[in-house]
Amino acid sequence: MKKIILPLTKGDATPRVRECLKKCSRDSVIVLESGEYHFWPDEASEHYCFISNNQHGLRRIAFPLFDQHKLTIEGNGARLIFHGEIIPFFAENCADIVIRNLAVDWVRPFYSQGQVVAADAGGVDVRIDRERYPYRVDNGRIVFVGEGWESPLTEGVFAFDAQTRAPAYLSGDSLGLGFPPAIDVEAVDEHTVRLLASFPVLPSSGDYLVFRHYKRNCPAIALSRSQRVLLEDVTLHHAGAMGVIAQFCEDVILRRCRVTPSGQRVFSVAADASHFVNCRGRIRLEDCLFENQLDDACNVHGINSRIRKVLDARTVLTERVHHEQHGVEIGLPGDRVVFADNTTLLSYADNEIAAVEAVNARFALVRLSRALPLSLVPGHVMDNTSWTADFTARGCTARRNRARSFLISTPGRVVLEDNDIAAPGSAIKISGDANYWFESGAVRDVLIRGNRFGDCCFGAEPWGRSVISIDPEIEECHLGQPRFHRNIRIVDNSFATFDPSLLLARSVDGLTFSGNSIVRTTTYPSVSPDAPPVRLQGCDNVEIANNTLNGTPVEVTADACLPVEAIRS
Amino acid sequence: MKKIILPLTKGDATPRVRECLKKCSRDSVIVLESGEYHFWPDEASEHYCFISNNQHGLRRIAFPLFDQHKLTIEGNGARLIFHGEIIPFFAENCADIVIRNLAVDWVRPFYSQGQVVAADAGGVDVRIDRERYPYRVDNGRIVFVGEGWESPLTEGVFAFDAQTRAPAYLSGDSLGLGFPPAIDVEAVDEHTVRLLASFPVLPSSGDYLVFRHYKRNCPAIALSRSQRVLLEDVTLHHAGAMGVIAQFCEDVILRRCRVTPSGQRVFSVAADASHFVNCRGRIRLEDCLFENQLDDACNVHGINSRIRKVLDARTVLTERVHHEQHGVEIGLPGDRVVFADNTTLLSYADNEIAAVEAVNARFALVRLSRALPLSLVPGHVMDNTSWTADFTARGCTARRNRARSFLISTPGRVVLEDNDIAAPGSAIKISGDANYWFESGAVRDVLIRGNRFGDCCFGAEPWGRSVISIDPEIEECHLGQPRFHRNIRIVDNSFATFDPSLLLARSVDGLTFSGNSIVRTTTYPSVSPDAPPVRLQGCDNVEIANNTLNGTPVEVTADACLPVEAIRS
Repeated sequence: MKKIILPLTKGDATPRVRECLKKCSRDSVIVLESGEYHFWPDEASEHYCFISNNQHGLRRIAFPLFDQHKLTIEGNGARLIFHGEIIPFFAENCADIVIRNLAVDWVRPFYSQGQVVAADAGGVDVRIDRERYPYRVDNGRIVFVGEGWESPLTEGVFAFDAQTRAPAYLSGDSLGLGFPPAIDVEAVDEHTVRLLASFPVLPSSGDYLVFRHYKRNCPAIALSRSQRVLLEDVTLHHAGAMGVIAQFCEDVILRRCRVTPSGQRVFSVAADASHFVNCRGRIRLEDCLFENQLDDACNVHGINSRIRKVLDARTVLTERVHHEQHGVEIGLPGDRVVFADNTTLLSYADNEIAAVEAVNARFALVRLSRALPLSLVPGHVMDNTSWTADFTARGCTARRNRARSFLISTPGRVVLEDNDIAAPGSAIKISGDANYWFESGAVRDVLIRGNRFGDCCFGAEPWGRSVISIDPEIEECHLGQPRFHRNIRIVDNSFATFDPSLLLARSVDGLTFSGNSIVRTTTYPSVSPDAPPVRLQGCDNVEIANNTLNGTPVEVTADACLPVEAIRS
Repeated sequence: MKKIILPLTKGDATPRVRECLKKCSRDSVIVLESGEYHFWPDEASEHYCFISNNQHGLRRIAFPLFDQHKLTIEGNGARLIFHGEIIPFFAENCADIVIRNLAVDWVRPFYSQGQVVAADAGGVDVRIDRERYPYRVDNGRIVFVGEGWESPLTEGVFAFDAQTRAPAYLSGDSLGLGFPPAIDVEAVDEHTVRLLASFPVLPSSGDYLVFRHYKRNCPAIALSRSQRVLLEDVTLHHAGAMGVIAQFCEDVILRRCRVTPSGQRVFSVAADASHFVNCRGRIRLEDCLFENQLDDACNVHGINSRIRKVLDARTVLTERVHHEQHGVEIGLPGDRVVFADNTTLLSYADNEIAAVEAVNARFALVRLSRALPLSLVPGHVMDNTSWTADFTARGCTARRNRARSFLISTPGRVVLEDNDIAAPGSAIKISGDANYWFESGAVRDVLIRGNRFGDCCFGAEPWGRSVISIDPEIEECHLGQPRFHRNIRIVDNSFATFDPSLLLARSVDGLTFSGNSIVRTTTYPSVSPDAPPVRLQGCDNVEIANNTLNGTPVEVTADACLPVEAIRS
């Protein structure tokens, strides 16, 4: 094993990393010293990165890991401080990579925060520390200024409760406005701006407002087409996009990783803490902390490609529809694919990829090994089922972030066990759709056991109103139809939350909810005091038994034939 | 020779072009039918294009010519109509390419025009045909809407005289405002907007205003690292960037090419009609027409790379400074380079490239074959002199465009002969700088003979106040110093222009101005009636003789020691 020291000297460490990487041969370790390294984009390597669920583009990279085999980056507790637009770690076509014992932060994060000093029907006054979050007011808009970038507010503001440091009760995106194209602003004094809008949900004085004013350009760790990656004792205080995003990878472990704010910030990374797209083998999250990120804790899914044209008996033109999926590979020759109707999501035929020719980031010509089904028409979707993973999350804590905790869409073996989860939306969401996000992956084997669910679903309604939400985007579920999801066991968990709704499930064949102990808290006023604990639609082979409420056995009942609209709200 | 027909059928021709290109072998001709083809970006090939003097980015391409040898595209007079963001022709690593007898246009161009209905100290009212140039007024800004793109006005407005269809007299960029970050707008009626600014140069009623509201993303024909390219009888009515841009190419001919507006437009392509960067061999423009483009008719130059760091005795870190030069190659092993002081521009040492390692689009590590000069310090520049071309323009007409006509910076043999040139700026500009544009190329052999210069220099002052302007960006020229340019003969031309200034020359060794016939016109009021016909500074070996004014021999005099400030204004 070759040992290469990354010297801890003043100035930009980026060129020194490049020198270290040149020295790497198979089986090397780059050793950092315990201390603070600084990285700027100027002399960083550049690569056009198509990173799923983030923005694609030409990116500077501090640790560009291409075609590395058996490489360990031993951090020794080093703090890696980034300046401006740069991706800390990007790995492609690598194998046996370990990144260990280091922390990632930015001096000037890509997002800003302030504290509410007043709020009324006409707007909200926010005091912003201009040293930490430089900005200017320009033509009625607030423009935040960073190191090498400037950005007007366009991507939402989010209220965080000063006491809980979690999203404020019932306060959704942009205080209920969603994502308006712009919010008018006026300067009140040198450190205070007034957001001029009639916000549906007024924040309280003292609440923090987080301004998301930057696209998902700079994730902290992005992994593509790589095998056996271990991230251990890695702390991500911030990133200008997701924390860890892996696509078309095999066997990825996050062990004792922490996504958590630094200093006085109430936000950590700018989007999901972790995200796995078309990965295979095993994904394991062990003893991790995911808090205060501006989107979900974890999302595991495949991608449905839409059929744009059927060109001949064996060839289709496929489309990566969502712009954050553009440029993500379709698959390799030999990969198994299934075709599904985009309204029912149910797959009706399988096939094998013979060849893929990318036309551009959006379209690809895919030749199949066998004749296509005659029912295949434009609008239907194709899913690559050779790239799906087993998933385990054990001993993790997920809390205080915007939106949900775990989004699970994979047919592999899924185990969520011994986790502490409290989200302003659903703690666990098992979905699937073929019309907007195009995130695929009907589940086949899910065990949710021994987790401790805290207060959930106190945020915006679209984030979920049931602690566990199984809600594939299917138009209708009828009796006798095949079900989309299968075999989900929710057993021996504790639920301690303020609202009664624990489980929403649609189109599941084989659902167990048993051995769970339920406690009602008083943390927040109930949002839907009369909601049933369990709501089902189009589910078969359901077992609900042996659950307790406040220590007493309770008969949790479920309505198995609620109308669609009632279920989805 | 293999003949491949591009069928003229309805709908998007882009996938059919891809099929044709797949069939090409060495020595093929793609034959178009006489008629109208339409192209959309959706199914177009994609490539990250670093195109000098244009914006780099991920681009869709209708005719992606990569590694093609002996390929002719025979247009047979076809009209190629483009929709949205797409580059018609991009060729890289090709040889012996002919593109012939076709026209390029867009249904909805990337720029818009209107007609002035009123102008006063508070603003200008412009009537815009919303069918042709869709727009909306949004939050006090005009947003132009195209096919798949929207754009707020940010890149200037330009007044064109309705009679001459050329830039209006003395009206510069944005009616004298230059390039403000934004111009406020209000809707006057359904088809009229008012531009709210105190414009220094008010347009007349009936003048056209051209709105440049789009970056240089989509040139019509871009050529990179290709040899022997002939463009013959190619008409470019529009492009969302330059007309023809070639870099690191060898032997490029434009024969009977026409850059000219279609329909009622007063603008053709959005930037330079033709542009050649670090080309070698011969560049020839024969019997071409360049009119109404929004920048110069032709620019030939190299690129000075700035020295960012001297890393060791043979290695430098070089910088492509101007953002439109990012990603353009530095050169190949074996290429000769010279080093120059950025204040004097004078090269003081040469060397040979041993290896180039691109760090990113901006920086590259360059290892030289021999030891670097000791005087080399950061800020100095490196120029690749193995990639410089001979240049001929003969029988061409250049007129009615924004800015200048021919910008010539190459040490090769230059002949401008038998051309008709009338520009609102200088007809010919021979410059060179190492501090802003970084366009290199001291001339060594320039013959300007038998051209007919019409009214020039009636536009904005920065575009030039002398018909021929030789003005390298050198701080000072002193007696006894070496001169930057050499051997420029301006002979047997006719000048028929309204202002007296014909020639400005700085730092030239060997300058002839003889046999020229001069006529003063009355087209416009004189701007500088007392200006000398010839102004010189720091020139040696000057011959001014045998010139006539209105048919009478005239002693054209020149002040050889004007102070720098007087010369440059």
